[in-house]
Amino acid sequence: MMPVDMADYSIGVDLGGTNLRAAAISREGKMLNKVAGLTNFAEGREAVLDDIVVAIESMREKHGPGLAGIGVGVPGFIRIKEGYLTGSNNLPYLENFPVRDAIAKRLGTPVILENDANAAALGEKWIGAGRDVEDLVLLTLGTGIGGGIIEGGRIVRGHLGMAGEFGHVTVIPEGNPCGCGNRGCLEKHASATAVTAMARLMQLGEDLSSKQVADLAAKDDVVGQKARAIWQTVGESLGAALAMLVNTFNFPLYLLSGGMLPAWDLFAPHMLRVVEERSFTYRTTKTETRIAQATLGNEAGLYGAAYLPWVEG
Amino acid sequence: MMPVDMADYSIGVDLGGTNLRAAAISREGKMLNKVAGLTNFAEGREAVLDDIVVAIESMREKHGPGLAGIGVGVPGFIRIKEGYLTGSNNLPYLENFPVRDAIAKRLGTPVILENDANAAALGEKWIGAGRDVEDLVLLTLGTGIGGGIIEGGRIVRGHLGMAGEFGHVTVIPEGNPCGCGNRGCLEKHASATAVTAMARLMQLGEDLSSKQVADLAAKDDVVGQKARAIWQTVGESLGAALAMLVNTFNFPLYLLSGGMLPAWDLFAPHMLRVVEERSFTYRTTKTETRIAQATLGNEAGLYGAAYLPWVEG
Repeated sequence: MMPVDMADYSIGVDLGGTNLRAAAISREGKMLNKVAGLTNFAEGREAVLDDIVVAIESMREKHGPGLAGIGVGVPGFIRIKEGYLTGSNNLPYLENFPVRDAIAKRLGTPVILENDANAAALGEKWIGAGRDVEDLVLLTLGTGIGGGIIEGGRIVRGHLGMAGEFGHVTVIPEGNPCGCGNRGCLEKHASATAVTAMARLMQLGEDLSSKQVADLAAKDDVVGQKARAIWQTVGESLGAALAMLVNTFNFPLYLLSGGMLPAWDLFAPHMLRVVEERSFTYRTTKTETRIAQATLGNEAGLYGAAYLPWVEG
Repeated sequence: MMPVDMADYSIGVDLGGTNLRAAAISREGKMLNKVAGLTNFAEGREAVLDDIVVAIESMREKHGPGLAGIGVGVPGFIRIKEGYLTGSNNLPYLENFPVRDAIAKRLGTPVILENDANAAALGEKWIGAGRDVEDLVLLTLGTGIGGGIIEGGRIVRGHLGMAGEFGHVTVIPEGNPCGCGNRGCLEKHASATAVTAMARLMQLGEDLSSKQVADLAAKDDVVGQKARAIWQTVGESLGAALAMLVNTFNFPLYLLSGGMLPAWDLFAPHMLRVVEERSFTYRTTKTETRIAQATLGNEAGLYGAAYLPWVEG
């Protein structure tokens, strides 16, 4: 761990399927500088790696020495020892490729690679909704569902770096088939993609966003009823997963983040009811167990990536 | 952490519903001395506490200075900060009572209290089936099902000391009602008690032990068929829970222990099949993920309790 020093800063990179963002962040969590752009898909792997390196270099030049390190958050399974990315639906062109070492080599300095949901969980712990606890679980509700576990202030990575795959925990044993080979995975019943699919199946419309389905739930007719039933399913599925997580971890805090949070009031009551029904631990520790919204939005991963060198370096 | 020294030893106590055991164990894991007796139920709390203190005192007198510390494993939920025991079906007379401080006061020296399954997991990590890994999960299959999580060589306790309650993870959403208030808990479908209950419901006999149901499974008739179906249910339920655990932790090792292990060959194939069906992580990391039998038997908790002062002290 580096000494805490006002001059110290770190660089975080959040590489997503569509966006590439990088930021220089001070040891106190102040964002000094940020760049954001589209991920340069079309021109292939080398172009994306170049973009990452250029973004980091520009930060480094601007803020000079005192750099604690560089953290990069990416979606998908990470083989942490090898610095490989595997099973990433969003970044297929980086699969089975030594992303970490390729970036480090271009920069001439080490880089820490991390799963994006793990990075987001760390960001929330650092300066977000989890700043007052040492242990938390984060569920990221997006097109898929990811997860991160923080214990004692550090990421629980698992021995290969694949811990926290809560999106593929079974919540409905005979539920929807999932691309992962299982059925009834949480992300088949509670992700934004699942909401869109349910809306289509219930003939509410094609390709509705979760925002649109949330708006429909306000209607005082059969359409509203159907939309509310969708959010009930989302809530109950999240509740089943959270009950399991509470029984497993007995942590003080479970956070949810992502684009579906605006529908919180529609799904959370169902979610909390099911956690209460299914977890004795939750019922008996309710005043000491919080299930709440994350607060950093889509900056969480950027903060967490930047924090990596301080906590995992 | 104390310096590793040949003279160092620790005292572990394993307090169960029927048995009280204590041992002096060297830093190298050699059992120097052991006493075992029945838990003095009938004469109440004070008598049991006296027995524990006498057992520890006798060890301390025999082995002299160089005592690293004292660890006590007990069944039930533990409020770790307060040293209280709550929700213990086996030790109701110790519930909501400051067990840890009562023992420490009598001894005039601190004591570390720990859940028995957590202690067993630590014992297996120290000198059992988990000695070569830093991270493991243990499921204890007995009249109930308990669990322990070791990460980075240490127990994951949760903020209140209740982590690892895998016995109450839902494996069959509409399954058997459980005393915990949930339905379809793992321990309602895969514990020794569940095996006995299934055998009764399937008219194989009253109060059959899991050993007896395992023996019946060898028969080449309808009775054998029913008994094998019971073990299939046990295996599938364990598989569902393990798939969730593998997705959650991505640890190298998942251990099962307890009186049902002799039936391993009857339930394990079903268990492993379901883990494979339900966990993408398991399928893609099969050569690096072991699901295996614990090796210390009912001594695991005693070893783990003795190891507590070295790792958690």
